[in-house]
Amino acid sequence: MNLGGGFMKIKIGIYGYGNLGKGIENAIRQNPDMELAAVFTRRDPATLKIATAGVPVCHADDVESYVGKIDVMILCGGSATDLPTQTPALAKRFCVVDSFDTHAKIPTHFANVDAAARASGNTAMISVGWDPGMFSLNRFYAGAILPDGQDYTFWGKGVSQGHSDAIRRIEGVLDAKQYTIPVDSALEAVRSGSAPALTTRQKHTRECFVVAAEGADKTRIEKEIKEMPNYFADYDTTVHFISAEELHRDHSGIPHGGFVIRSGKTGANLENNHVIEYSLKLDSNPEFTASVIVAFARATHRMHAEGNVGCKTVFDVPPIYLSPKSPEEIIKNLL
Amino acid sequence: MNLGGGFMKIKIGIYGYGNLGKGIENAIRQNPDMELAAVFTRRDPATLKIATAGVPVCHADDVESYVGKIDVMILCGGSATDLPTQTPALAKRFCVVDSFDTHAKIPTHFANVDAAARASGNTAMISVGWDPGMFSLNRFYAGAILPDGQDYTFWGKGVSQGHSDAIRRIEGVLDAKQYTIPVDSALEAVRSGSAPALTTRQKHTRECFVVAAEGADKTRIEKEIKEMPNYFADYDTTVHFISAEELHRDHSGIPHGGFVIRSGKTGANLENNHVIEYSLKLDSNPEFTASVIVAFARATHRMHAEGNVGCKTVFDVPPIYLSPKSPEEIIKNLL
Repeated sequence: MNLGGGFMKIKIGIYGYGNLGKGIENAIRQNPDMELAAVFTRRDPATLKIATAGVPVCHADDVESYVGKIDVMILCGGSATDLPTQTPALAKRFCVVDSFDTHAKIPTHFANVDAAARASGNTAMISVGWDPGMFSLNRFYAGAILPDGQDYTFWGKGVSQGHSDAIRRIEGVLDAKQYTIPVDSALEAVRSGSAPALTTRQKHTRECFVVAAEGADKTRIEKEIKEMPNYFADYDTTVHFISAEELHRDHSGIPHGGFVIRSGKTGANLENNHVIEYSLKLDSNPEFTASVIVAFARATHRMHAEGNVGCKTVFDVPPIYLSPKSPEEIIKNLL
Repeated sequence: MNLGGGFMKIKIGIYGYGNLGKGIENAIRQNPDMELAAVFTRRDPATLKIATAGVPVCHADDVESYVGKIDVMILCGGSATDLPTQTPALAKRFCVVDSFDTHAKIPTHFANVDAAARASGNTAMISVGWDPGMFSLNRFYAGAILPDGQDYTFWGKGVSQGHSDAIRRIEGVLDAKQYTIPVDSALEAVRSGSAPALTTRQKHTRECFVVAAEGADKTRIEKEIKEMPNYFADYDTTVHFISAEELHRDHSGIPHGGFVIRSGKTGANLENNHVIEYSLKLDSNPEFTASVIVAFARATHRMHAEGNVGCKTVFDVPPIYLSPKSPEEIIKNLL
């Protein structure tokens, strides 16, 4: 097993150069056992300027010519239309990692990627990031430790791209940013160990910052937002109309975060209560997601080197594979 | 791999029947894929009444007769004198799990247990619990994700057995209970992402409840506590003298908990900050420790079934081995 102290760096390919792809590029610089081998884009490569000097930018159609030159390809496309086809296709040629996050479709995606990876002897890891990803791991560990208990996941405060997009599609809206905010009193009730039953409305509120077109009917826009099924109707939603300048000045970041809490009971009569809480407070959602993915790309490379092929998830990874440090150093300093 | 839905339960032995051993016994009842096979004690077995009907209580000297009848032996002795000899000795005969928690001596303990387990083809897992254990895992994951950052571990509010014992050894003290308490302002500074440098005194305070003998010099006792090197001298310590009845009524529990926090940076110029926090709030320290150990005993059994022998730590365990649920169920419901 290459523990990263050696000579051969892990060669990473980035497939798709949006916010996540740029985050991967930055994260690779923070991990000296890795190097960026190439960036692949569906745009004209000549129009793409990346931050790492000397690394080729290639058209996605030319990816075949990199077989054997990339240890792990990191897919940075979207879950709606990109990853369902890209991950299985690329798993036929490369070890891959993606951040597929459409929870309901994960079993199907897993099966498709598994078939492709097994047929070619590659190792693929899907749904890596923080949710799915680190939040999943924490739900899992907590449940394995406390079988008699209840899980809660809260998201935020953070920007939901999907909800922001939904607002932007409303007539008369020029731009918008939506924050998902966990309700403090619900968090406190869960932390108390009282295992409350919480409705959607009790767990999160939604706050929207909207830039309306000149002369647009703001009352109608606000009503359309608040009554939008699935996205807003089940939540207490606040709408603020602001200028394009204010949106740019105050809401350009992509912060996010959240909480995974399990409260569970032990004892002869289940008389003792325990609360396990994992939380994230992130300045940049895509950069943190990228940092998680890069660590799991290292593990993917090692599992492949051991002949452990097929589709994997975060649950399959021995933690030690995530770090470039030696087992001795890890045991001495972290156990 | 036996995923727990089948016919063969995992047969657990408990070696040592104090608070931790009793916690293991309770935890086994919460895990239907496991059964308690036998309890071993250095006391006269006839004097020991355990909570599980029909399970033999044996003298520790008779443990050899259980070779082949126990899948995983869980060692419930202390780290100071019991485990350094017991774990290597028993690893020659059984797959074992212990909760060895003398951090500085873990590498030596690992080497001793590894040699014993490898020689006999057994699988041994050391230092399982919450610290070392779940806190170690969380320090590890957070460090692998955010290489440029800083770790903080806070303990409490909780009872420190070692500090309580140290007070009890002072002349004129009949009984005592010591709580370790994290300092809120230090926690908040860490959560802010400011990566503060914190002294021992700034991180924790110590609160002592002491029952003094009739006529004892309380001023001297308080002074001896507060000036005790290693245990109290480096902390702000509060001493309360109370009656034996009050100690029994208000301080009989063994609560504990704590916080593992990493703050780290990402971005082209490391301009974005992220805070990862894991916390525990436990009504019963030994019962929670036991719950962690039982899940890792399941993993130990599975790793042994795969031929993965020798000494292991929590870092080596693919998370999925900790749960009796099927991979399909875990991916569908927890990823």
